[in-house]
Amino acid sequence: MGDTRRAMRADARRNRDRLLAEARAAFLEHGTGASLDDVAARAGVGAGTLYRHFPTREALLEALLGERFDALTARARALADQGSAREALLAWTLEFVETTTAYRGLTAMLTATLRDPASALHASCEAMREAGTALLVRAQRAGDVRADVTPAEFLALVAGVSWAREQLTGGEPGADRLLPLIFEGLGPPR
Amino acid sequence: MGDTRRAMRADARRNRDRLLAEARAAFLEHGTGASLDDVAARAGVGAGTLYRHFPTREALLEALLGERFDALTARARALADQGSAREALLAWTLEFVETTTAYRGLTAMLTATLRDPASALHASCEAMREAGTALLVRAQRAGDVRADVTPAEFLALVAGVSWAREQLTGGEPGADRLLPLIFEGLGPPR
Repeated sequence: MGDTRRAMRADARRNRDRLLAEARAAFLEHGTGASLDDVAARAGVGAGTLYRHFPTREALLEALLGERFDALTARARALADQGSAREALLAWTLEFVETTTAYRGLTAMLTATLRDPASALHASCEAMREAGTALLVRAQRAGDVRADVTPAEFLALVAGVSWAREQLTGGEPGADRLLPLIFEGLGPPR
Repeated sequence: MGDTRRAMRADARRNRDRLLAEARAAFLEHGTGASLDDVAARAGVGAGTLYRHFPTREALLEALLGERFDALTARARALADQGSAREALLAWTLEFVETTTAYRGLTAMLTATLRDPASALHASCEAMREAGTALLVRAQRAGDVRADVTPAEFLALVAGVSWAREQLTGGEPGADRLLPLIFEGLGPPR
């Protein structure tokens, strides 16, 4: 590969990363209907460059969400042999809640894609679930989490915490408080 | 009041109850867009009678949801001095989850009304929250529930369980399993 071609690839990569960063900010601020022309302008590229990288709005949303799933997968794998099993699981689920809360609109919009086994997003999501499940199983083997909780129940409850977090307005505490609550239970402190 | 007028009132009351029963079934089966003509026909009345009782679809939805809130309020009050404080709270939250799961579409549709302090629905919802909070406080005084959980956190978590329940498909266990889990916590059995 010649230097020119390599430089072009690096350039394309940089544009893609900039577009993703600006799209992330725009979607979080304005929702999934944010102006794509604004995204391109802020990334310092033309609309044509945006559409070459992401032919549809959905492709852009998929790339963003896939990126987050992959980050959660990497985080789960990094935590797999770190600290106590309980702390590792708690740290990961806290990030899971942060992600699902921030990306709520995207997740809801892409539900059909998430369920389609042929999509890259489905694969990213499954990898994330599997890596999270490994943390759960480790915590169960360590006796930190009850053995009768299934991965589906665990993830549903954690997603429920994400949902609950959005119901608490203004001055109420967030996930950093609700999540330990479901680990410790509502009963009196042990 | 003459006998004729009393009979007419009893008749109107019966029609209203029939309309609510048929509307409940129709909305649960077909969603909040269910045919109102079908509701009237099934209740054995004309469309005019339906619109006299409920001038808009929203009025009908509000009446249904208000009815459920009032039932939850009555249930909470009935449980206020029954059994153990923990069992009473668990029984009530289980009914809360059943209601919010069954009436999900209605609740989402009426969110604005719920937040409007001038609406009857807001008053019904507040009364339900207060009655539920009384059960929570009783359980906290009895030492069954940790004292540092606020009513807002408690209701948000329970609503989160409702939400989580819908995420579990098919063969997965429902609220009867998830709800005790948040009471007992994910930690090993005590």
